[in-house]
Amino acid sequence: MEAFAGPDDHLPAQRRAGMAVTSHDVARAAGVSQSTVSRVLRTPGRVSAPTREKVLTVATALGYVPSDVGRSLVTRATRTIAIVITDLTSAHDTHLIAPLHDELSARAYRMVLFTEPVEGHRERPDGAEPLTREEEVKPLIDRLLNRATDGVVLTTSRLDGIVPRVLTQHALPFVFLTRYTEGIAADWAIVDNSLGASLIAHEAIRLGHRRIGAIFGPADASTGRDRERGTRAALAAAGIELPDHRVRHGLFTFAAGYGAMTELMAEQPAPTVVLCANDTVAIGAFNAARALELRVPEDVSLAGFDDLPMADWEVFRLTTVHQPIEEMARTAVRLLIERIDGRAEAEAGRQMVFAPRLVVRDTLAPPPEES
Amino acid sequence: MEAFAGPDDHLPAQRRAGMAVTSHDVARAAGVSQSTVSRVLRTPGRVSAPTREKVLTVATALGYVPSDVGRSLVTRATRTIAIVITDLTSAHDTHLIAPLHDELSARAYRMVLFTEPVEGHRERPDGAEPLTREEEVKPLIDRLLNRATDGVVLTTSRLDGIVPRVLTQHALPFVFLTRYTEGIAADWAIVDNSLGASLIAHEAIRLGHRRIGAIFGPADASTGRDRERGTRAALAAAGIELPDHRVRHGLFTFAAGYGAMTELMAEQPAPTVVLCANDTVAIGAFNAARALELRVPEDVSLAGFDDLPMADWEVFRLTTVHQPIEEMARTAVRLLIERIDGRAEAEAGRQMVFAPRLVVRDTLAPPPEES
Repeated sequence: MEAFAGPDDHLPAQRRAGMAVTSHDVARAAGVSQSTVSRVLRTPGRVSAPTREKVLTVATALGYVPSDVGRSLVTRATRTIAIVITDLTSAHDTHLIAPLHDELSARAYRMVLFTEPVEGHRERPDGAEPLTREEEVKPLIDRLLNRATDGVVLTTSRLDGIVPRVLTQHALPFVFLTRYTEGIAADWAIVDNSLGASLIAHEAIRLGHRRIGAIFGPADASTGRDRERGTRAALAAAGIELPDHRVRHGLFTFAAGYGAMTELMAEQPAPTVVLCANDTVAIGAFNAARALELRVPEDVSLAGFDDLPMADWEVFRLTTVHQPIEEMARTAVRLLIERIDGRAEAEAGRQMVFAPRLVVRDTLAPPPEES
Repeated sequence: MEAFAGPDDHLPAQRRAGMAVTSHDVARAAGVSQSTVSRVLRTPGRVSAPTREKVLTVATALGYVPSDVGRSLVTRATRTIAIVITDLTSAHDTHLIAPLHDELSARAYRMVLFTEPVEGHRERPDGAEPLTREEEVKPLIDRLLNRATDGVVLTTSRLDGIVPRVLTQHALPFVFLTRYTEGIAADWAIVDNSLGASLIAHEAIRLGHRRIGAIFGPADASTGRDRERGTRAALAAAGIELPDHRVRHGLFTFAAGYGAMTELMAEQPAPTVVLCANDTVAIGAFNAARALELRVPEDVSLAGFDDLPMADWEVFRLTTVHQPIEEMARTAVRLLIERIDGRAEAEAGRQMVFAPRLVVRDTLAPPPEES
């Protein structure tokens, strides 16, 4: 008897009554074993094409929805990847989410978002001791280790590496995206931050700037440290000084850029260009210049790093360094899933370093003539 | 014998060997039954305070991490909430994520992000039939119904209500945030969009504008429709016409605002003010004005809706309508969790409508004098 012969007769009773259809029902209607149904759903490549077609057709006809919870017990996989980012309100961070979401979704993984608190961001009662880094990251680590996650994309790592070290101890696969921690044989996808920063610095020098200011990122993040290195190396190679009073360090935030720019422009004489740790910082600096009634680039030049979509908006036209973030995100997901599936060498870290590209727009111009 | 008498003797062997600690180990070390350990973790209110303390102390000492997967089998709860948003690259949408994340995290829920494709956003091969709405939302619905989610926050609903109707059929709890679908007895947290839009229109009229243009949102979303209603009602009450050639409709995107503004300013005579569906649209329009070398507000006034953080940036200083998005997000999460926990009336929808507030900045000024 052909399984699809009758109109509704072959449907299990609970389907007609609106109850949930199980893999057992699918197996019976398709005339295969329940384990074949499971294989079709979990490892379709191991099932012959005709059988696969038959099972999928029947499953669709019955309206069968596999339960992720049930499946995770069988496979010990949750099909869930955690993304750790710093700040959900920052354009820089949310910029990373979209390509990760699309890539994970295409591979049938769900994306869970976690934020890692940044020192100083967490309010403490007056007089309370500040949290140690260990205390600060403990809630995040507890949530990552609750076994409902197959792997982790880390975008917030610091050089201290507490989170990746704990994940390594617990054998939970992870990948570094944009930032890394040294001394851990892990996979990562980053841009050559040092090279990118030197491209911008060389361009400023080429245009004639000598009184150069910089707003660097956090020194405990590889991005902050490596971009600072690249900037300093380029200036040193050209014999240009970068005195401490023309340097600020801060978080990768609008507020940090705004505040640092306000301070730097109060210097006498002020810098003719300010090189910023990333686009968000540069846009904060741009708005601070506007508040000070300084024109960019006529009175002061600015440059960023990242090439966020808003860097291209007419109001900014920010000269910056492009990093291929979609490609980096796709690569990170691929590396991570290969790691989860056991398709990567156990010991070797695969370190993918993408090339940065200078994007010349309107905020970096020759310095104003001295009056 | 006191369980904590010895130094390390009471630790189970696998703990010393670095293996996972189970609830059984905690029960043995604390001298209670395994079901007591489960109760402490799931329904602590039903366990006496001294027992609770003892179990938690032992669990902490042993480094016990409860498995969410195991727990979800016992309680049939996944402690996971799905958030459906449209566009992960839009400041408007990502603006919603942060308060939802924080509120869910405070209540020990995980957040899974899903995007709902917007018509026209999905690329189709040349010559292919466009997808129907049912086909378009099917992948989203399948993923929401996979039973690994306790409830859903919908921020993308259209008036057709396909997604909420399917969720209702499957008894999966949900809440509407910012947008709603009529004819479904559901919970929602929205702002009074019609009132907000009329506040802006009244302000434009008060300043002397008579040649008014509008970029409205999608007519199939309650936000788009209700804001359009409020604008039209305010203009009609003042006896001011809004002819079709000064109106555009589009998605809530930068590109839609940019394109529509470019068209409207080509009208002869052009409008003296353009009222925009939201801040993202207004910022697109602002940049289009910049590209056309039109000054805002000297040559043309602009207004938005939402009061995103960037509306306050010096480069924009956008006059807009504030909606209390953090409070709305917190309320939505509370309504949803009450619904999941069975603490809400089964039949009645609880519809929380927040008050909008006019935020006067610099982009809405009197019209230029006719030359």
